[in-house]
Amino acid sequence: MSATSAAPALSPAGTRVFQQLVRSGDASRTALARDTGLTPGAITRAVRPLLEAGLLLETGDRASTDGALGRPATMVTVQAGAHQVIGVKVTADELFGVVCDLRCRVLDEATVPVGGHGPEAITDLIVGLVDRLRTGRPEVGSVGLAVSGDVDAATGHVGYSPFLGWRDVPLGTEVARRTGLATTVENDVRALLTGERWYGVGRGISSLALVTVGTGIGCALLVNGQVVHGGFGVAGEVGHVLVDPEGPLCHCGNRGCVEAIAGSAGILERMGQAGFKGLGIGDVAELARSGQPDAVRVLAEAGRAVGTGIATIANLVGAEHIVITGEAIGSSPSDTADDEQDYDVMDPHVRSAFEQRAFGSAARAAIELRPLRFVDWARGAAACAVEDFVTHYGRS
Amino acid sequence: MSATSAAPALSPAGTRVFQQLVRSGDASRTALARDTGLTPGAITRAVRPLLEAGLLLETGDRASTDGALGRPATMVTVQAGAHQVIGVKVTADELFGVVCDLRCRVLDEATVPVGGHGPEAITDLIVGLVDRLRTGRPEVGSVGLAVSGDVDAATGHVGYSPFLGWRDVPLGTEVARRTGLATTVENDVRALLTGERWYGVGRGISSLALVTVGTGIGCALLVNGQVVHGGFGVAGEVGHVLVDPEGPLCHCGNRGCVEAIAGSAGILERMGQAGFKGLGIGDVAELARSGQPDAVRVLAEAGRAVGTGIATIANLVGAEHIVITGEAIGSSPSDTADDEQDYDVMDPHVRSAFEQRAFGSAARAAIELRPLRFVDWARGAAACAVEDFVTHYGRS
Repeated sequence: MSATSAAPALSPAGTRVFQQLVRSGDASRTALARDTGLTPGAITRAVRPLLEAGLLLETGDRASTDGALGRPATMVTVQAGAHQVIGVKVTADELFGVVCDLRCRVLDEATVPVGGHGPEAITDLIVGLVDRLRTGRPEVGSVGLAVSGDVDAATGHVGYSPFLGWRDVPLGTEVARRTGLATTVENDVRALLTGERWYGVGRGISSLALVTVGTGIGCALLVNGQVVHGGFGVAGEVGHVLVDPEGPLCHCGNRGCVEAIAGSAGILERMGQAGFKGLGIGDVAELARSGQPDAVRVLAEAGRAVGTGIATIANLVGAEHIVITGEAIGSSPSDTADDEQDYDVMDPHVRSAFEQRAFGSAARAAIELRPLRFVDWARGAAACAVEDFVTHYGRS
Repeated sequence: MSATSAAPALSPAGTRVFQQLVRSGDASRTALARDTGLTPGAITRAVRPLLEAGLLLETGDRASTDGALGRPATMVTVQAGAHQVIGVKVTADELFGVVCDLRCRVLDEATVPVGGHGPEAITDLIVGLVDRLRTGRPEVGSVGLAVSGDVDAATGHVGYSPFLGWRDVPLGTEVARRTGLATTVENDVRALLTGERWYGVGRGISSLALVTVGTGIGCALLVNGQVVHGGFGVAGEVGHVLVDPEGPLCHCGNRGCVEAIAGSAGILERMGQAGFKGLGIGDVAELARSGQPDAVRVLAEAGRAVGTGIATIANLVGAEHIVITGEAIGSSPSDTADDEQDYDVMDPHVRSAFEQRAFGSAARAAIELRPLRFVDWARGAAACAVEDFVTHYGRS
């Protein structure tokens, strides 16, 4: 699925140097040698194909600060615009697309409304959006797609996406064939996590949890600097952490899972049981803000369930930073203000349950509740495409 | 803390080759080049100091099966006995010591009873045991110590060991000073996990959980092939996974943690409430086996709590294999038969709760209940010493 098979082969050392440079933007040869453990000669050989391809640039005019002999340091700089990527987040209502450079800076963005959810209709829309965004940009060389559900990043197959009703859709192969661009597909929460590693709160930390609260509870984990995929493709299922064995029934068959208490369906069902039918999540938050006791109670329980879930993550994997964001059922995807306020209502309950259940120093994790912005997810998809490009550059 | 500072420096490539060889025992140069991405020339330069030190041996007499031209393959073999390590597991009753070679094969073992628990008394005993085990073995070059509690492996400091009543004990520095041997200190459960990676069920898998059930509930996690230490030194706290918000009070201040239900103190306390005072864990198991309803109920609850805890691990990190072992309060450390039978009683309850709560494919994790053998822990400590020796060889 690579469109870069014509590129000259990069040695494993070259790949490591390229990865490090794309993350840092630039570095002196001396620093590269120190950080990778390679000799200066090996660095020279490693970067040569990238210099020839115009992806790196060498400049020798900066005075050295780390060379023992005071020689001018040779700086190596990433030509970030030389390879551009398109990232697309697929939702049930809209596609969000961005063009990014190699440093994941957004150069352009666009959205298209979604009609039917069949694989053919969505693929057509993706191809159309990619064509629109790449117009006048010959530097665009790869595509990253973020889709909710069970995605095999290695093959670009969507195994199961409940939201879209898809099973076994070879999305990556199809988009690559029709666009002629190397295409990477990733689970949307893991794509968001990848973005955070490249340009967000994940820079420079080795353990991070990203939790999305909405219809379902999604979660992606970074442990020891690596994304956790799980031995059997299951990981980060914080939605099925037990909160209350007497709690509401979950679709997994158990009672009292985080998702049964804090997922949108569970919240709306309990509001319905209290006599409030036909509400959206935004309405429940509004009622809670006005002091309506059922809404206050239901959202407090939801917040405490999420707090217990993230405390369990902190206790088991020792996350340094935990980001909570989410998609509220029924709200327009661009209606971020509402989402933000929903989390304002839940925030103190999330934090108090977390503090109560986090064990010892695990309680030092930074907790951040953040409004949902789909452009961040599209940028995460772009980050996946950049990572794939850098990691597999020159390999067929 | 290294006694190998006189060794010739190893390049980062040399370290990678040495690590790979110690794990596999031997390999052809061709296979080493393929697996490490190094050129044959780089492999030659990398292994030279290790050949000179007698840690590796080259033989050229095996017919090649992977050389394209059918040339005889040069095999590189680890001289496993050339560097030997002593591993010691510290318990409140006894020290368990082993001598191992670089492949973690046990060459000798010994135990000494423990009197006082003060750092000086235990350090004296460790030094005496090391001296006894190294007699007639000039190849012994390093020591690994496994201690329960909060251990900083980087410095060899024991921050807090409730079992021994220690705070801030510079155990590694002291044992290194008195023995003249490079000394590694690790949390005992993480040491056991390290051993499983080198020679046990952890070989060739990337995610493994090891859970110890006894006075406390310990846990060490391997994720993406790496031991999880946690951002703030806390990880694997499966003992504080919530099982029942109405459950018994835990020492952490919450109710219904796994440890409050399945830890030895909790089990004995609930048996006491049912009128059975002064029992040991072995007695409770015996009563359960004879059908005594309180013992049956209390051990079933304990088993279900452990099963819920390991399902939470499987759901969050996707462990491929989960080993449960443990130390029963009051039983002699060598009295392994009793422990085994305790877990026979708990086994079906652990498994049924796991199956009920594991989400989707996470349920495919292999669950293994295993009797406690302290010699395995000592061997894990030896594996930590081997890992340290190999990783830091030639670096001061």
